[in-house]
Amino acid sequence: MNNFTFYSPTEFVFGRSTENQVGDLCVKHGAKRVMIVYGGGSVVRSGLLDRVKAALTSVGIEFVEMGGVQPNPIDTKVREGLKLAKDFAPDFLLAVGGGSVIDTTKAMAVGYYYDGDFWDLYEMVNCKKKATASKALPLGVVLTIPAAGSEGSGNSVITNTTTHVKVGIRYPMILRPKFAVMNPELTMTLPEWQTASGVSDMMAHILERYLSNTPDVQIGDRLAEGMLMAIMECAEKVITNPQDYEARANIMWSATVAHNDTCSIGRVEDWNSHAMEHEISAEYDVTHGAGLAVIFPAFLQYAAKHNPGKVAQLAHRVLGIADSGDASADAMAGALALKKWFSEKLHMPVTFAQLGIENPNLELLNTRLHNLKGEVLHGYMDLDAAATMEIYKQAL
Amino acid sequence: MNNFTFYSPTEFVFGRSTENQVGDLCVKHGAKRVMIVYGGGSVVRSGLLDRVKAALTSVGIEFVEMGGVQPNPIDTKVREGLKLAKDFAPDFLLAVGGGSVIDTTKAMAVGYYYDGDFWDLYEMVNCKKKATASKALPLGVVLTIPAAGSEGSGNSVITNTTTHVKVGIRYPMILRPKFAVMNPELTMTLPEWQTASGVSDMMAHILERYLSNTPDVQIGDRLAEGMLMAIMECAEKVITNPQDYEARANIMWSATVAHNDTCSIGRVEDWNSHAMEHEISAEYDVTHGAGLAVIFPAFLQYAAKHNPGKVAQLAHRVLGIADSGDASADAMAGALALKKWFSEKLHMPVTFAQLGIENPNLELLNTRLHNLKGEVLHGYMDLDAAATMEIYKQAL
Repeated sequence: MNNFTFYSPTEFVFGRSTENQVGDLCVKHGAKRVMIVYGGGSVVRSGLLDRVKAALTSVGIEFVEMGGVQPNPIDTKVREGLKLAKDFAPDFLLAVGGGSVIDTTKAMAVGYYYDGDFWDLYEMVNCKKKATASKALPLGVVLTIPAAGSEGSGNSVITNTTTHVKVGIRYPMILRPKFAVMNPELTMTLPEWQTASGVSDMMAHILERYLSNTPDVQIGDRLAEGMLMAIMECAEKVITNPQDYEARANIMWSATVAHNDTCSIGRVEDWNSHAMEHEISAEYDVTHGAGLAVIFPAFLQYAAKHNPGKVAQLAHRVLGIADSGDASADAMAGALALKKWFSEKLHMPVTFAQLGIENPNLELLNTRLHNLKGEVLHGYMDLDAAATMEIYKQAL
Repeated sequence: MNNFTFYSPTEFVFGRSTENQVGDLCVKHGAKRVMIVYGGGSVVRSGLLDRVKAALTSVGIEFVEMGGVQPNPIDTKVREGLKLAKDFAPDFLLAVGGGSVIDTTKAMAVGYYYDGDFWDLYEMVNCKKKATASKALPLGVVLTIPAAGSEGSGNSVITNTTTHVKVGIRYPMILRPKFAVMNPELTMTLPEWQTASGVSDMMAHILERYLSNTPDVQIGDRLAEGMLMAIMECAEKVITNPQDYEARANIMWSATVAHNDTCSIGRVEDWNSHAMEHEISAEYDVTHGAGLAVIFPAFLQYAAKHNPGKVAQLAHRVLGIADSGDASADAMAGALALKKWFSEKLHMPVTFAQLGIENPNLELLNTRLHNLKGEVLHGYMDLDAAATMEIYKQAL
């Protein structure tokens, strides 16, 4: 096990009607002037935004708001938010929505104190960030979509609309939300597509950590396997009955734990499936979680051939594959079982064609991927351009 | 799943040589005047105390120290510490040791601001605390014994030397350490008895949470089961080879996660085995973890007869018992398998006699238990005096 720091200071307030506490939570965390960030119409139509604003007003907090954050959040919206923020001078940011809204809010949180264009903090130059942040505005979250885990992480992913580069930042010490209000009732009306895409995303967050060559990380492995089993059980329930509060609650909390580093302590992580998917959603604007349901089984099939150990363990402990003594065969069976599960139980696409991309420009995706990440992607396996192309083709 | 708040703000700094960071961590968390609390000779003999003091001196922190905290920490030592603290006026407390040292430090942290004898905060009057704390001195930890999980919890357990009452407090919002330095190397020299007692304790912390009637808590159940499997695998390695750093590291981190509420979200917990054990260690001054190895299998045997569901699940998923369709029989097989494992793999006592108590005064223990906790102990099962006596007798 490698040395590590685990720091998850977010106060998670979870359960029915918890959004009513948002005013008190803002006060508790020192907010006086709040900028609310949200996305599309559902937060407005459901009355949630009005309830949040009423809660802030009731405790004497002044606020401005910015709506219209879209899925796969973009740089131009961050700049729009920063302009508004510079005028209003908030001391706290409040994200009301899912991962895209939270990631936009986080970009504003670090961008606010950066003397230059915020994209410098995201942009890779020679495999390094062009600039780094040392300070961020504090932020809170009212979560409406369980998927990204951004409510508990110090991460943010933004797409550059000019260059089509989709890239993340990671500041676990300064960018984790101060609080996250999580009411599973708010997720009951999510359509199946969004629910299932969220499940794919949270499972990928666990698998990206699980796929590690660091030896002797038993506690992280077992926590990851446990989470995956709970998510798969509850996801099947939710797809069958979207009104199942209990299953919704389990999934909502699992998405948080999947991404707050609970299962990644002391190990080198992978994240190459995410990098490969980011190229797809940046170019074709597909839902990130759906893209992962396409890429991850293909990635695992490649791993079954080249580094089967951890995939075979996953197959045995999580995916119901009996140990045949042949790790590669068991890993391949596990990869195919997961692909089948994504398709049959989650109703997710598992090929480019099912994702609605009939003739993907794989050369373009692969070239951009390696331009961004370097000649070889390091991680659970070293992947050169031929390897990533093989994985992309596997997903056709 | 019930509503819950999860708040674990401790900064855990884990791995080899991490104790060298203690000065910087104190500064980061605002300390200028530190009171160091520690236990017996090993912290002194190993040179750890000197290294900690050198680290504080190097960053210009003034400090006083109090050693001599004993296992099963006592009220008189807390008062001694509080007297010293009132003279020195620290702005930060630093516990260097295991659970007993941390719990003593926590008692001082809340006692420092309480206008009266600190024991009022612990004492139960009509099943309620005599007084409650709203403020605590901040504290940090350099951990040397993985067991109690106190480095990540807001709990503290102290024994009253006059009344022989051993009782805890729980302040998750104000009493969690600001940081915890955790170097598994510091645990390599722990004797087998202390290592195994620690393992029993952390497993009990998980089981006390696991044994719940709250339905639909899949994510917590799976996390708990995963932790137990990792701990059992690594405990066997450590008992075989005490110098196995990797297994020590897994166990050290597992003890923290076992007690920082990771697996207790959204459920009613039990804790009656702990209450029953506290009576044993308060009267006979045995090691808490060893007492739990005696009580827990007896408790599970009783549960197998009266509420087998969760114990059968444990048997199937963790203890290698095949599902026979008879929950009660499987639960009993699981309870006996755990007892056998404690005895054969951990070399722990599993009866009062093996614990060195030939003729325990069960009437006294049982009377004190119900005087403290009420006529019926509520939890996974409702236990009246006849029930707890049956469990105590099962452990003979």
